[in-house]
Amino acid sequence: MEHDEVGFVSGRSRLYGIVGHPITQVRSPEMVTAEFVKRGHHGIFVPFHVEPDDFEASTRALLRMPNLGGLVFTIPYKQRAMALATRIEPNAQTVGAINALARDGNEGWKGEIFDGLGCVEAFRRRGIGFAGKRVTLIGAGGAGSAIAVAIAHEKPASMRMFDLNSRRVEDLAARIRHLAIEVEVGMPVIEDCDILLNATPTGMLEDQRSPVAAERLPPSLVVFDAIVMPETTTLLALAEACGCVTVRGREMMRGQIARIVDFFGV
Amino acid sequence: MEHDEVGFVSGRSRLYGIVGHPITQVRSPEMVTAEFVKRGHHGIFVPFHVEPDDFEASTRALLRMPNLGGLVFTIPYKQRAMALATRIEPNAQTVGAINALARDGNEGWKGEIFDGLGCVEAFRRRGIGFAGKRVTLIGAGGAGSAIAVAIAHEKPASMRMFDLNSRRVEDLAARIRHLAIEVEVGMPVIEDCDILLNATPTGMLEDQRSPVAAERLPPSLVVFDAIVMPETTTLLALAEACGCVTVRGREMMRGQIARIVDFFGV
Repeated sequence: MEHDEVGFVSGRSRLYGIVGHPITQVRSPEMVTAEFVKRGHHGIFVPFHVEPDDFEASTRALLRMPNLGGLVFTIPYKQRAMALATRIEPNAQTVGAINALARDGNEGWKGEIFDGLGCVEAFRRRGIGFAGKRVTLIGAGGAGSAIAVAIAHEKPASMRMFDLNSRRVEDLAARIRHLAIEVEVGMPVIEDCDILLNATPTGMLEDQRSPVAAERLPPSLVVFDAIVMPETTTLLALAEACGCVTVRGREMMRGQIARIVDFFGV
Repeated sequence: MEHDEVGFVSGRSRLYGIVGHPITQVRSPEMVTAEFVKRGHHGIFVPFHVEPDDFEASTRALLRMPNLGGLVFTIPYKQRAMALATRIEPNAQTVGAINALARDGNEGWKGEIFDGLGCVEAFRRRGIGFAGKRVTLIGAGGAGSAIAVAIAHEKPASMRMFDLNSRRVEDLAARIRHLAIEVEVGMPVIEDCDILLNATPTGMLEDQRSPVAAERLPPSLVVFDAIVMPETTTLLALAEACGCVTVRGREMMRGQIARIVDFFGV
């Protein structure tokens, strides 16, 4: 059988994909498909390049295919995709965006955002919970918002948040206070803090800067950086030199993939 | 890189697929994808299950995706798909159906039907041409029509065709006579014939019948059966016992896949 020659695509394959513009940079096709293979699911996850004018028609057409199992959304569609969901999970409601749609009964589609849940999952896999912890988060953009909301649902003792754009960090803080979490907005502090998270692009690629000014970090601090490339940012290198436990962007990405595949019901 | 873990799907994969209803029985996803891999093309060919009411909207949406390289159509869409093409190849015009769409310049899509061309390709790979040959074809349905038209374009000396449905075989004969081929309609004959082709379902699966009544075949006759399962039909078993050269349905399928991938420009 030719099926064995290639491994995992056939007429019986359940179809999944990521909708974005542009599309070539996405990593979910190989990562989600690998997770399907690992779980023994006969599915294939492909890139769907959809241009902004076609978003509505193209996604509705995909969702009408009986063999479509789910979709993931990336830039610039995380907000627009909300309109496709017939039910939105509480976490995504607070964020105001979704990045995945999965079947919900016969006709429905449930929407959730996993950017932040992937971060929580990465910590959980390291045996570290957020409940009762004092958390400092730098960055209140797309990734930072999703991380803040996901952590808030874990009931930390307090959250301190910083962003150069004070309006968006205040707006995010207000949404999180609705979840009855103690939230402070201001410059990041590394004392009286259990977990420090960077969700800014500072340190990405050729940028050698650290998002915090400190030259030393307390060894009890757990340090997370959402940046995937480079794997070891200047912040993480400092944390390691100071004996801190570190959690990497790639771990968040893996955690997110696992949670999305759970969400698909695989 | 996770890309290496799975082999061939990523954000840079060119997307292709087959549109049909139902879809689980199709074999092209594994066969076309394997052909892409063989040719070093970074593409993935997936099943798109599209229901009749959604055909127009879903296919138009797919064709608008910039990373879509082409589509194949199966039952029940080979006729309806013609309306999607901006240019129809002469072979498909004569058949009145297409089973593949490939990009044609910046905005266009060219349509062709490869069911019959795959048969011609299978013979070519065996070093057997149709030019100047006396051909007998049994079956004037979808597969038979496509085979008849593709062979007619090869300029055989004559074609004799038979089908239990006399109207459809007369209609097919009329279309082929337009190509200036000598065509006769009537019971199949195995004498004064160089190539005998079965394009009926007689002999498929549990059906042990032969589409011809003969107990012996001339050893000079080349015998083809479009049936894929079983690989050796009763007709082919008889032909082999009589020392005839035989060409199998699976060879036609492989020939069709190769020609479709050529058509995609891969």
